[in-house]
Amino acid sequence: MSSHVIITGAGLCGTLLALQLAHRGHKVTLLEKRGDLRKEEMSAGRSINLALSDRGLAALDLVGLRQKALDISIPMLGRLVHIKGGGTTMLLPYSGRAGEHIQSISRPGLNALLLDAADEHPSIDILFNHGVQYADVKGARVIGTKGSTSETFDLTGDILIGTDGAGSEVRNGFMQIGSTIRFNYSLQWLDHGYKELEIPAGAEGTWQIEKNALHIWPRQSFMVIALPNLDGSFTVTLFLAYDGTPGFNHLNTDQEILKFFKDEFPDLVALMPDLIADFKHHPTGALGTVKCGPWHTDRALLMGDAAHAVVPFYGQGMNCSMEDVLKLDQCLDEVSENWPKAFEIYNAGRKKDADAIADLAVENYYEMRDHVDNPDFIAKRAIEMKLEKKYPDYASKYNLVTFCEQHPYSYAKEKGNRQDKWLLAYCNQTDTSNLSEEELERIYKALKEV
Amino acid sequence: MSSHVIITGAGLCGTLLALQLAHRGHKVTLLEKRGDLRKEEMSAGRSINLALSDRGLAALDLVGLRQKALDISIPMLGRLVHIKGGGTTMLLPYSGRAGEHIQSISRPGLNALLLDAADEHPSIDILFNHGVQYADVKGARVIGTKGSTSETFDLTGDILIGTDGAGSEVRNGFMQIGSTIRFNYSLQWLDHGYKELEIPAGAEGTWQIEKNALHIWPRQSFMVIALPNLDGSFTVTLFLAYDGTPGFNHLNTDQEILKFFKDEFPDLVALMPDLIADFKHHPTGALGTVKCGPWHTDRALLMGDAAHAVVPFYGQGMNCSMEDVLKLDQCLDEVSENWPKAFEIYNAGRKKDADAIADLAVENYYEMRDHVDNPDFIAKRAIEMKLEKKYPDYASKYNLVTFCEQHPYSYAKEKGNRQDKWLLAYCNQTDTSNLSEEELERIYKALKEV
Repeated sequence: MSSHVIITGAGLCGTLLALQLAHRGHKVTLLEKRGDLRKEEMSAGRSINLALSDRGLAALDLVGLRQKALDISIPMLGRLVHIKGGGTTMLLPYSGRAGEHIQSISRPGLNALLLDAADEHPSIDILFNHGVQYADVKGARVIGTKGSTSETFDLTGDILIGTDGAGSEVRNGFMQIGSTIRFNYSLQWLDHGYKELEIPAGAEGTWQIEKNALHIWPRQSFMVIALPNLDGSFTVTLFLAYDGTPGFNHLNTDQEILKFFKDEFPDLVALMPDLIADFKHHPTGALGTVKCGPWHTDRALLMGDAAHAVVPFYGQGMNCSMEDVLKLDQCLDEVSENWPKAFEIYNAGRKKDADAIADLAVENYYEMRDHVDNPDFIAKRAIEMKLEKKYPDYASKYNLVTFCEQHPYSYAKEKGNRQDKWLLAYCNQTDTSNLSEEELERIYKALKEV
Repeated sequence: MSSHVIITGAGLCGTLLALQLAHRGHKVTLLEKRGDLRKEEMSAGRSINLALSDRGLAALDLVGLRQKALDISIPMLGRLVHIKGGGTTMLLPYSGRAGEHIQSISRPGLNALLLDAADEHPSIDILFNHGVQYADVKGARVIGTKGSTSETFDLTGDILIGTDGAGSEVRNGFMQIGSTIRFNYSLQWLDHGYKELEIPAGAEGTWQIEKNALHIWPRQSFMVIALPNLDGSFTVTLFLAYDGTPGFNHLNTDQEILKFFKDEFPDLVALMPDLIADFKHHPTGALGTVKCGPWHTDRALLMGDAAHAVVPFYGQGMNCSMEDVLKLDQCLDEVSENWPKAFEIYNAGRKKDADAIADLAVENYYEMRDHVDNPDFIAKRAIEMKLEKKYPDYASKYNLVTFCEQHPYSYAKEKGNRQDKWLLAYCNQTDTSNLSEEELERIYKALKEV
C-alpha cells in the first residue's frame, strides 16, 4: 500500500531514504531548509570531505549508486602519521587484506549524486528552502516558512521522517511531547572543537603530500588530520581544546596562531599559504554526541544525525546514517510495510548500535591523538595486519567497524574492545618483533575466544 | 553594589532566593507563570506534600522561616511497612538518634509562607501570570505573555536566574546557545510513572493510620507510599510501570483498577472510598531526571529543578533546591558579590552534588520498592540504628543525605555506598540477632575505614 511520506532534510540520509522509499512505491515529499547545494556556493570551513566505507557503500547499493560514489572518491589505504620532529612513519594500513580501505569523498559531491537520482524519480517531490519550524510527530505534520520570506507551509503526510541533522526540528517535536512518550534525550559536548583549513593543490592539480592516505599529526592532547580531495587539495582539520594551553581561546592573534603551528606542525605551515587567514575566518566548530529515544511514534521516526549525532573520530557518522536506511528497509520488508510495527522493530534493533558507534567515536578520539604513535599501539596494529592477512575470519576492531557490515556496531564494539585489551597487554609484555607462525596461530586462537 | 535580579518561577527555590537576594541588598523581580497559589484552587493529583529535612531547614534559616515551616509540618519518625498479607512491620526509624526525623509538609503551604515573606519585602516585586517564552541568557532578558492574554512583557535585568522548574524556559535559552557554551543536557525518564490518591481524614480530623510515619507498601516492582497531612488526610502515591503487568497501561476499567488494589493493597481499598474516581481523574505523572551544565553565563544562572530535576525517591528534590540558595549565598559572600565569579564557583562546587543526589534518588527507588522488606536490609537498618544511637560521629547513608547538611551530597553518596556494601555483606554472612558491644565496636571501626 502506498503512503505519502514527508522527509525533512535532503542531506545524505534523507535523500537516500527518499530514493529507497520511492523505490518501494511510496510518494515522498522531501523538504530541505537550505537551497539546492548543486546551485549554491558552499560556505567555507564546514566538513567538506568525509570517509566513506563499507556500511555506507552497502546502503548505496540499495539505489545502485555505489560505483558512481566510488568514481568521485579517493582511496585512503591507511594512516600516515606525521611525527613532531618532522617526517612520517610508514603507512599504517587500515587492513591486512587487499581491497579493504576507506574512501575520501566530498560531502556535497555525494549529496549531489543522490539529489540527481531523486530528481529523476517521479514519486519524489523535493522542496528546497523549506525550513521546518514545528513538527507534530503524532499527526505527521510540519509547519514552517519558505526561505527567508514570511510565506508559510503546512503539510501533513501519512508518515513523517526526520533526517534533519544534529539540530533536528522534528526531534524538538518529540521533546515537546516528551513526558507522554518518555523521550530520553542527551547532548554531550567534547571539551575540544575543530577548525577546517586547507592544503591547496600543487602544480597542475597534483597532491602535495601522499594522495592515498589519511594524514594524522597526533600531538597527545590535540591533533591535525588531512583528507585528499579530487582537485589535488586536502581538507585539513585541527582538533583542539577550547580552553587550556594550547587552546582555541588562546589563539587569537596572527603571532599566536603562527607560533602554535610552527612549534607543532612546521611541515604544515609550509604547505598552507592561507593558514592565518583561514584560521581567523573559518568558524570553530563544536563536537557533540546526541543520544535519544524512543525514535518513533506510530507515524513519525528520527533517523541519521537527528537520532544519533556522533563525533567524527571513527569516520562513521555518514556511514551509520546511510546504514539506517538499509536497516529501515529491512524492517519494512519484515512487516510488509506496516509502518508502526516497522518503526518499533527498527528502534528496538538499531538503538544499541547507534549508542555503540557514538561511544566508539569518542573512544577513537583518544586513540587517534594519544596512542597512534605509541610503540605498543604500533606493535598491536602490526600483529592485526598479519592476522588479517593470514586469517580471513579475523578482524580487528577497526576492521569490524569499518569493513564488516555483516556485524552490527554493538558487536564490533564489544568484540573489538575485548580483542584490543588482550592484544595491548600482550604487546606490553612481549617482544613482538619476530613472531613465529606458531605464535601468530596462538594469538589468533586466543582472540577468537575473548 | 546593588543589582537588579530577575528570577523566573516563584516556587520554593525561586521565592527563597528572592528573599535572600533582597536581604543581600538587591532589587528582585520575581516572575511566576501561574497565578498566586494563595488565591487559587489547586489542581488535584500533583505532589501536594513533600518531606522536609535538614538541608531544607538549614536553607530556611537564611530567612528565619524554619520554625514557621515546622509549625505547619508533621514529623515522620520512620517508615511503616505494610506487608502484602496484611498488617505492618515495626516502625523502621529514620535514625537511631532522637530528633533526627523528617517532616511532611504541604508544598503550597510552604510556598505560601515564603510568598507572604516576599510580599513584605520592599525590594521584591512579584509578578504573577507572567510566563516566560524566551530567555536571552547572555543578555539577562526575558520575553513572555501575561496570563492567557496577548499582552507581552520584555524585561532586562543585570542578572537572570532561572528557577522555573523541570520544564525551564530559561534552560531552553541555554540550549539555544548550546554549541557556543557547550551546554550539556540530559533528560532520562523512568519506566515507571506515578498517580496521586487520597486517604481522607477520619472522624473529627483524625488520622486513620499512624500519623507520625511515612507509610510504604513495597511490592517489588511497584509500591505505594502515603504521607500525612495536617487535616487528617494522607496523600497516597502509587509508583508503577507504564507497560508490563501490572502497569498503568493495563489499568483502565473500574474492574481492573479495583482488582489490582484488592489483590495488592486490600487494606488501602477499605481506606479510600474515592479510589476508582481518583484513579481515573488524576493524571499519571512521568518521572524524569534532568542533568545539565554549565549552569551559567556571566549574567544568568539555573537553580533548583531547572538545573537538576530529580526523581522523588530520596525526598530530597525540594531540600536540594533550597540548599542551592544557601550555597549560592556562600559563593556571593566569598567573592564579594562578583556575580560571574560567584556563578563560576557555585557551578564548580555544586554540580557533583546535584549529580550525586540525582543518582541516589534513582538508586533509592529500587531500595524502597525491592529491598525495604528484605531480611538483610532490615538487619542492616537495625545495626545502623544501634550505631547511630551509640556513636555520635557515625551516620548511615540515609542519615548522611538527610540529616548531615555539613556534608555535601557527593560525600554522602560515596561514603554511604561503601558503608552499605560492607554492611550488607556482613548481614548476609552473620547472624546479627545478638550482637555484642565488642562486635558493634568492631563494625563501627570497620565502617570508619571504608
